[in-house]
Amino acid sequence: VEKLILHEDPISANCYKVCLTAAHLGIALERREYDIRKGETRTPDFLHKINANGCIPVLQIGDAYLPESNAISLYLATGSDLIPQDRLQCADVMRWMFFEQYNLEPNIGPLIFWRTYLGEDRLNEIQRMLLPVKTAAGNVALALLDGHLAKHDFLVGNRFSLADIVLYAYTHVAGRGGFNLGCYPNVERWLQRVASQPGHVEM
Amino acid sequence: VEKLILHEDPISANCYKVCLTAAHLGIALERREYDIRKGETRTPDFLHKINANGCIPVLQIGDAYLPESNAISLYLATGSDLIPQDRLQCADVMRWMFFEQYNLEPNIGPLIFWRTYLGEDRLNEIQRMLLPVKTAAGNVALALLDGHLAKHDFLVGNRFSLADIVLYAYTHVAGRGGFNLGCYPNVERWLQRVASQPGHVEM
Repeated sequence: VEKLILHEDPISANCYKVCLTAAHLGIALERREYDIRKGETRTPDFLHKINANGCIPVLQIGDAYLPESNAISLYLATGSDLIPQDRLQCADVMRWMFFEQYNLEPNIGPLIFWRTYLGEDRLNEIQRMLLPVKTAAGNVALALLDGHLAKHDFLVGNRFSLADIVLYAYTHVAGRGGFNLGCYPNVERWLQRVASQPGHVEM
Repeated sequence: VEKLILHEDPISANCYKVCLTAAHLGIALERREYDIRKGETRTPDFLHKINANGCIPVLQIGDAYLPESNAISLYLATGSDLIPQDRLQCADVMRWMFFEQYNLEPNIGPLIFWRTYLGEDRLNEIQRMLLPVKTAAGNVALALLDGHLAKHDFLVGNRFSLADIVLYAYTHVAGRGGFNLGCYPNVERWLQRVASQPGHVEM
């Protein structure tokens, strides 16, 4: 078994997502911390060696480097019961994971960063214009999630899967980005359901 | 074998991506066309029955509906040699597919739509402000792709895979969004390599 090193910033829910997946699988990850606010994932050394895209998380597997939080989570969960064996259910897990990176994270993630870590008075003109745009799009994504969870306890196949872990990460801290989760009671109940799974760890 | 129906708009490279995957696999897809410019994927009937997210493509598999172009492509390619058997290479395919939906498509896709189909004079204030932002971010993504392809003939494992199909879709029409592919000679050579694969079909 090769040593696994997670290159991460603890303030990132994309990194937490990987840690939560590993915790459920009982996989030990060694951690290397970077401060994205200080540009530590944009240094020439990081771009050359760890990830040309300048993002964390990156999973180091022996001498290979794997970026993208959802690709890392899939790598860790391969062959486990976090991924359904059924071909259509497996594709449905992927569907929610792509939804997460396209509709949920790009709206909730920046708003958390801008409101909690950068501060609204330090936003540039484009960020200020995007605040209402991302707020609206994030609420559309949360409403879609709430509608699905009105009829399902978990996202796929009526049982806990990697899809729940991946979508939990940003959803459970959406309040830090100014979203009111009280508007989404089915999402709130699902968050509690996910957090009460054996093996759960806090961010 | 269940009948497969692709709900699509032929102007969308996300839909072409699915058709190209199916062509390489020799899978027949029945097609239902919608015009996204006329809001045909936003009707109450579409939202209720086909996809609550109001997007195409959606693959209908019997009475199940699978959204998200990359989840559909993965569903079709499961078990084929478009997906490497090696666990790390398989994760690397996923990595490029998440990169595509996070860094490439959200920048190139809207610019193609705005410049080729909507028209620059019909953009609203936010779209006008985002033009240079998405142009810059799209060029960063293309430069990263070019750097990788300077050292590799294909994206993963030195052979043609689902990653090449998925990233080909938007990259090969980036010019319609105002991007100059002449700046990315390794990308241009790779586009030719992908287009010369047996089984290739045009958009």
